[in-house]
Amino acid sequence: MVKERDLIRWIAGRAPDVGDDCAVLDCEPWGTLLVTTDSVIDGVHARWTTDGPAAFGYKAVARGLSDVAAMGGEPLWAVVAACLPPGATEAEAHALYEGAERAGCRLVGGDTAFGPTAYVTATVLGRAHAQGPVLRSGAQAGDTLVVTGALGGSLTSGRHLTFQPRVAEARALVEHGVHAMIDLSDGLSTDLAHLLEASGVGARVEAALVPCHGTLPQALHDGEDYELLAAVPPGTLPPGAIRIGTIVDGEGAVLVHEDGAEDPLRPGGYEHGA
Amino acid sequence: MVKERDLIRWIAGRAPDVGDDCAVLDCEPWGTLLVTTDSVIDGVHARWTTDGPAAFGYKAVARGLSDVAAMGGEPLWAVVAACLPPGATEAEAHALYEGAERAGCRLVGGDTAFGPTAYVTATVLGRAHAQGPVLRSGAQAGDTLVVTGALGGSLTSGRHLTFQPRVAEARALVEHGVHAMIDLSDGLSTDLAHLLEASGVGARVEAALVPCHGTLPQALHDGEDYELLAAVPPGTLPPGAIRIGTIVDGEGAVLVHEDGAEDPLRPGGYEHGA
Repeated sequence: MVKERDLIRWIAGRAPDVGDDCAVLDCEPWGTLLVTTDSVIDGVHARWTTDGPAAFGYKAVARGLSDVAAMGGEPLWAVVAACLPPGATEAEAHALYEGAERAGCRLVGGDTAFGPTAYVTATVLGRAHAQGPVLRSGAQAGDTLVVTGALGGSLTSGRHLTFQPRVAEARALVEHGVHAMIDLSDGLSTDLAHLLEASGVGARVEAALVPCHGTLPQALHDGEDYELLAAVPPGTLPPGAIRIGTIVDGEGAVLVHEDGAEDPLRPGGYEHGA
Repeated sequence: MVKERDLIRWIAGRAPDVGDDCAVLDCEPWGTLLVTTDSVIDGVHARWTTDGPAAFGYKAVARGLSDVAAMGGEPLWAVVAACLPPGATEAEAHALYEGAERAGCRLVGGDTAFGPTAYVTATVLGRAHAQGPVLRSGAQAGDTLVVTGALGGSLTSGRHLTFQPRVAEARALVEHGVHAMIDLSDGLSTDLAHLLEASGVGARVEAALVPCHGTLPQALHDGEDYELLAAVPPGTLPPGAIRIGTIVDGEGAVLVHEDGAEDPLRPGGYEHGA
């Protein structure tokens, strides 16, 4: 069985324009075009019969908006390819595209087919900030580590279908000189590891500061939050940003408890007392 | 059951940037961006077990290249979202992306997931010619009607999985002042009707001139040829173009037989002696 992460690496190795969360394409003097493509598959990312077609359209586009936001870009346009399951009605098809529009991006094209199972693929196009796309690799020791909202329990609460992509918060972060950014799709512990590895730094996360929807372990390890995780210059706290720790020299992340005890914070799992 | 054509109209009504075959997006002074998204679904457009994963990647991108070519554009980049069926191997996943690359466009991003059935969605981005995108609506009475290759039997012969998108031929057509263009995905009789309706003109198609892979009815009505159909100024015949008839005043198409007899040529069906 092939692993998704290996595949992403393999594709990135063949395609030098693959950026962190989006492809980064030179369209100067207009600007830098950001492009990302994301799917919502029945039974994998949402359920057609219980979540409904609007959730498919919404989530597919919202995932793309989150990717563009993570690179500090302004989303401009979306195209949506949909496969409708047998017996889908016109009302369901309309609901799917209306859901896609509701995510907050101009829908400029579509491709509709009928097949064995429902899926939607949205490709979102945006423009990077004039200063260039925000990468994962710019975090510096001393930076403040921030997130844009409470974390955890997204899949069980249904928030993974209704989350608001952090486009405005991303703009504020860019205006405040953000050094590095990523969106939280795989969970804080995993996505933080990506950011730290790309930047060649470590981090200290203060347990008491992590905003939680449920328990702390959920906030640390659950996926599909679609909040932004960013490293901002010391002393900076843009609107919508919540401080959770500090970037430090070294590598890897440490979780600092209220009593001062420390644990390593490893991707996908929290190892107490290690 | 919802009809795809109704849906396309419904989307186009909500999205003013939806062009003929691509979305047409203003990125001046860089140029006009063309964007199209197309899917290949297991059991609908190809078969995973018999056609193989490379055919999925190739056809999805090649369909997009054909759309960009149909608007006279230069394809630049592609992003590919793939859903792999249960048990897909790493070799199969690589074959899919290698097939996508073989279509002849720079692959700049991907999204890979696992789901119940195989599908691939490719979004192709290109740049319109400096004179602007070629539309379906520009045909004028007196124009020569041309195609870029033999038609018919694509699905039965397997050509729908291996066709060469007519990017170079499109460039030659643009350089020779093409007035209107469309790619033949639904079949000559149907796509010709789209071009004539959009241009407000009629056409006389000479049966003896239509290049056929099989029978004449197949060439007239089969889909998935992915050749270009274009109206060029009188007396013009760009390289790679084959004359099949003439644009005339009026509406609808007429098929002119070698003996001078004429039949109406209607979308999807050839009515003899009507």
